[in-house]
Amino acid sequence: MTKTRLYLYDTTLRDGQQTQGVQFSTAEKVQIAQALDELGVDYIEGGWPGANPTDSAFFDAAPKTAARLTAFGMTKRVGRSAENDNVLAAVMNAGTKSVCLVGKSHDYHVTQALGITLEENVENVHASVAHIVAQGREALFDAEHFFDGYRDNPRYTVLVCKAALEAGARWVVLCDTNGGALPGEVSRVVSEVIAAGLPGDRLGIHTHNDTENAVACSLAAVDAGVRQIQGTLNGLGERCGNANLTALIPTLLLKEPYVSQFDIGVSVEALAGLTRVSRMLDEILNRVPSKQAAYVGASAFAHKAGLHASAILKDPSTYEHVDPATVGNARIIPMSNQAGQSNLRKRLTEAGLSVESGDPALGRILDRIKQREAEGYSYDTAQASFELLARDELGQLPAFFEVKRYKVTVERRKNKYDKMVSLSEAVVVVKVDGEKKLSVSESLDEDGSDRGPVNALAKALAKDLGQYSRILDDMHLVDFKVRITQGGTEAVTRVIIDSEDGQGRRWSTVGVSANIVDASFEALLDAIQWKLVRDCRPRAVVAE
Amino acid sequence: MTKTRLYLYDTTLRDGQQTQGVQFSTAEKVQIAQALDELGVDYIEGGWPGANPTDSAFFDAAPKTAARLTAFGMTKRVGRSAENDNVLAAVMNAGTKSVCLVGKSHDYHVTQALGITLEENVENVHASVAHIVAQGREALFDAEHFFDGYRDNPRYTVLVCKAALEAGARWVVLCDTNGGALPGEVSRVVSEVIAAGLPGDRLGIHTHNDTENAVACSLAAVDAGVRQIQGTLNGLGERCGNANLTALIPTLLLKEPYVSQFDIGVSVEALAGLTRVSRMLDEILNRVPSKQAAYVGASAFAHKAGLHASAILKDPSTYEHVDPATVGNARIIPMSNQAGQSNLRKRLTEAGLSVESGDPALGRILDRIKQREAEGYSYDTAQASFELLARDELGQLPAFFEVKRYKVTVERRKNKYDKMVSLSEAVVVVKVDGEKKLSVSESLDEDGSDRGPVNALAKALAKDLGQYSRILDDMHLVDFKVRITQGGTEAVTRVIIDSEDGQGRRWSTVGVSANIVDASFEALLDAIQWKLVRDCRPRAVVAE
Repeated sequence: MTKTRLYLYDTTLRDGQQTQGVQFSTAEKVQIAQALDELGVDYIEGGWPGANPTDSAFFDAAPKTAARLTAFGMTKRVGRSAENDNVLAAVMNAGTKSVCLVGKSHDYHVTQALGITLEENVENVHASVAHIVAQGREALFDAEHFFDGYRDNPRYTVLVCKAALEAGARWVVLCDTNGGALPGEVSRVVSEVIAAGLPGDRLGIHTHNDTENAVACSLAAVDAGVRQIQGTLNGLGERCGNANLTALIPTLLLKEPYVSQFDIGVSVEALAGLTRVSRMLDEILNRVPSKQAAYVGASAFAHKAGLHASAILKDPSTYEHVDPATVGNARIIPMSNQAGQSNLRKRLTEAGLSVESGDPALGRILDRIKQREAEGYSYDTAQASFELLARDELGQLPAFFEVKRYKVTVERRKNKYDKMVSLSEAVVVVKVDGEKKLSVSESLDEDGSDRGPVNALAKALAKDLGQYSRILDDMHLVDFKVRITQGGTEAVTRVIIDSEDGQGRRWSTVGVSANIVDASFEALLDAIQWKLVRDCRPRAVVAE
Repeated sequence: MTKTRLYLYDTTLRDGQQTQGVQFSTAEKVQIAQALDELGVDYIEGGWPGANPTDSAFFDAAPKTAARLTAFGMTKRVGRSAENDNVLAAVMNAGTKSVCLVGKSHDYHVTQALGITLEENVENVHASVAHIVAQGREALFDAEHFFDGYRDNPRYTVLVCKAALEAGARWVVLCDTNGGALPGEVSRVVSEVIAAGLPGDRLGIHTHNDTENAVACSLAAVDAGVRQIQGTLNGLGERCGNANLTALIPTLLLKEPYVSQFDIGVSVEALAGLTRVSRMLDEILNRVPSKQAAYVGASAFAHKAGLHASAILKDPSTYEHVDPATVGNARIIPMSNQAGQSNLRKRLTEAGLSVESGDPALGRILDRIKQREAEGYSYDTAQASFELLARDELGQLPAFFEVKRYKVTVERRKNKYDKMVSLSEAVVVVKVDGEKKLSVSESLDEDGSDRGPVNALAKALAKDLGQYSRILDDMHLVDFKVRITQGGTEAVTRVIIDSEDGQGRRWSTVGVSANIVDASFEALLDAIQWKLVRDCRPRAVVAE
């Protein structure tokens, strides 16, 4: 059976940029476009050239892609020709093969927002699309407020779409701009407009997540006959976001009825990079990745219930609808007071620690984790701190060094040029190989800027650890997260530090204290110890 | 036309607790149950009595609710009677009016996971439900893996459900345990099983969000005839979460075809408390609320695109599918380099600052915001810092006091009892009313525990501000968030501080620096200044 081609149109760089708090730099746009192209989407909407400086700069710097890079704009205004509309000209000047113009299809918006007649609007849409086609470009028309318009005046919305098609638009995209349409309505309306003469293989769907149905509305539209889906990575976008391609792509590629019915541009091989692409975008945005995200979230294949966890160990299909590896994700059996010893042994094995079933150390480790969690610690993500705790309990944690005391000073005052400057200084006293060592570091980096007290502490701590200092050379801190949380009855600070080394390892450690510097210091100590466990076989004695 | 009653079954306290990293205390469970009851759900599943100590304690401490408090458990095991199954006995001992038991309906799980015959499983389900009913309780049966089972052996899944109904179960709940079913499949299967004799008004639906379709699958099941929806607040739950009642409730109550067709227990008045309930749960969990959450997210009614923002100011329905007030949420016109001056004036008005259109100060404020955002600041949430920046530019920020310098020391060492202890000390030098004042504070609270350097700084700063100190007495810090972000080409620390005062005000301020203490100090300073702007009419001169 031949499959039908379904096209993916990504608008992360345009509608995704409408997310509150999101503003991509040109370099970030280039990086995201390259990732989208490797993934295999068909269209990459790069932005609105002329509307803001970053978007214009991006089209100048645009990378070569197999995907069609598309410039976004709006239909020409009334009272001038398409050729003489300067907003449209700026869009055309980006020189992309494809151009997508948004225009009104809801009669209320035509007469109230634009203040023009219904006929003038149809003429604007037709002339604008015809202009793009005349310039040898592929034209797309985003029918704004399509579903709201169809509710009020179905004949007019269809009329506008037909004008775009007759002018030569390759695609007319049915936009649920306000995000209010529900899947049942989308299904019915798409069926009706196809019956009314709009050809399904020239229709696209653009939904928003205001009722948490954007993915379902996209699927409902495909079920009813549209052949292009617009969406964004991680569901970025105005208000509650656009349809989430990160959730849609695996569904289309792995699950029935879609996998038998459709071909998409994303290959099974590229799909295995999906989790990485999703995390990369969060990294660019400095966002904590959503743990619960479908397919790519850190919890998406995390089995907390004791019953589930033990069944999973026998046969993963018992509690997993797809194999996590297909999307580049991984199974997690987290710790919690509902987790049994089988979870714990699984997690210890992942950390390279093999413990016999029935070993009394298992109970001791679980008890200690419960006690620490009550104090505000969290080991769901801090796998490295979990491992150190377990090693300690199992007598497999070497005593590399001992911290005797530290002192950090943070000062802000005027310098000799009468400018306010800040500076931190840390003194750390350790005992290593039987020797007491005092180290002092300040927080200034090469160019003289203050990197703060945790930086000064980290430097002082690593400065002289005898035989171990060399091993820590290629290690650096990549993320630092702080939350106020509950430790017993008091509010405490939980710090999670992510570290990386030259061998590409990345690990997370946790520290808890009412004192943020102290919590950071604890997480730093764990980070260093984990690295030393990995990279050295010391002469030191085993800790008690 | 009479409407059909649709029942809401909340499992936040049971399946919601399966979320990675979530563990409610008994007191928190009580607080959540009360909020659910005020909202108007029909059932509150409180946990599995006997399975873990918190769940058992909760049923002992359970509040009186109009909603039916329900204990969860599993069907009796083979080889013993329902009366003699100790796991089931623990569930019954919770003494709830309703009891929900999960049991197998997928033949593979019966023979492989349980290792019993298909007939034995049917008998277990029947006997367990009959036992509950014989004890005068309402019985519910969760048919685990129903949709996976129906794919493999539709006759058997229906047979198990019929056994539960015949034994007297009020509800049989079709569970998509693994979250793999898509809305089209749910719709078809529900129609088929109703046609096969399962009565729709005794069927419920329980979905998971593994393909981001849990809400849509619930709606599809209702469309096909089920009359009970199971879900959780904020979509908590195992892996990617359960169907999100926070999204489903407003859809059912505000949107067609549901509002005309169904009655639910949630009133329009209670719906206006939905955003508050959602945020309360995040607060209990110490989670940053999802900005993009449907209906209740801080961005759900945030209009960033310049075109949208100006239309919204004329008529909100142009870009909003429902009125934010119906769910207790609010419209936001955030700042960004895509926002025009009309956004800015709207936001200034919200801050009580009226500026004429065309005032050159508007351009200066926008420029300064852009420059600060490039340095790593973010004003989307830090409304109080935004206001101070604008006031400064408008010449409406009084110069209350000036900080000349500060110094903080954080020390960790052994005390006289040979125990490691930490202590911070802060010295702040300010000039207020022409007078130089030195204040020193340490970080210890009444019971001698160290609250850290930011606490010491906050106390020293507020200690002696002359005429202003009194005003700051009822102010305290409620949250403190730290992110590493990009400031120009360097990584910097962004601190957001949420403060509260005795008048119930809550405000957010931002500070940015490579030095975490310095960033915190800046956010603290803003927090204090904002409070002083509100609460005093000083003699001080206006800042330049």
